[in-house]
Amino acid sequence: MGLFTKEIHSMEDLYLHVLQDIYYAENQIKKSLPDMIEKATNRELTAVLKAHLEETEHQIARLDQVFQLLGRPPKGTKCPAINGIIEEANDIAGECDDKKVLDAALLAAAQAVEHYEITRYGTLIAWSEELGNEAVAKLLTTNLNEEKAADKKLTTIAGKKVNLKAAG
Amino acid sequence: MGLFTKEIHSMEDLYLHVLQDIYYAENQIKKSLPDMIEKATNRELTAVLKAHLEETEHQIARLDQVFQLLGRPPKGTKCPAINGIIEEANDIAGECDDKKVLDAALLAAAQAVEHYEITRYGTLIAWSEELGNEAVAKLLTTNLNEEKAADKKLTTIAGKKVNLKAAG
Repeated sequence: MGLFTKEIHSMEDLYLHVLQDIYYAENQIKKSLPDMIEKATNRELTAVLKAHLEETEHQIARLDQVFQLLGRPPKGTKCPAINGIIEEANDIAGECDDKKVLDAALLAAAQAVEHYEITRYGTLIAWSEELGNEAVAKLLTTNLNEEKAADKKLTTIAGKKVNLKAAG
Repeated sequence: MGLFTKEIHSMEDLYLHVLQDIYYAENQIKKSLPDMIEKATNRELTAVLKAHLEETEHQIARLDQVFQLLGRPPKGTKCPAINGIIEEANDIAGECDDKKVLDAALLAAAQAVEHYEITRYGTLIAWSEELGNEAVAKLLTTNLNEEKAADKKLTTIAGKKVNLKAAG
């Protein structure tokens, strides 16, 4: 971003900025998930994280399509939010010396990631519709629904498996 | 956190850590909201942000009660996630030179904050119930319901007012 000039003048500029933000975020998540998968011990948690890594790859491909529809090159912009969420996940995970507690921490971290994606996709879908980009809204809605489904699966595991074992 | 020793050994330790994390986050949000209120021009958005500032103060008071119930002093722990979310909000807002676009950016930022709180309270409530802290779960559920209601109000404004004006 410019030091002396403001770069967001219109809704289209803001929209593109937030799209680049989620593009960067998805790519950071793709990089972080293998480490989380390696650390997790609960089978169900590992399975959800593995499935979500695959989903993330498809989501990035859908974002590539979105950029194409908008006639823009796919590009990320630094996203301090996702960096902070991932940093916090790594900090907490690094402090856990019990595998079951680590699973609970990883699960909570994965849900924080999902919620960040859910809010960003929600915003982008609303803006896409307002700007008349229906095809884009459809692609982003597919991503949003996958994030919501992943969050729901994590909630189910959290309630029934990972945490109970750690607490027990 | 210790450099050479791990500090989270049990679910109780993890639970306390995440509680300190949301305590820090709520206090950071309390500090950031007045600036967002000052920048916002849409009346409905300003009203929701003002109401949420008041709610945030009550939420911090409820967290004080939670610490008391657990027999621990109220204390925050650095939360890179909320710092990243707020940093991103400031970065984007600083780039907007149109008031209506700025409103849309502030609204999206406020929703990102709400979603972070929603995921953390969700996790803490699940853990409170598992650990048998029903009174704590009740206080945290009040906070969670306020966050969800605030997010819903912001979604309504986003769909009907702020963004449409900026896009039009």
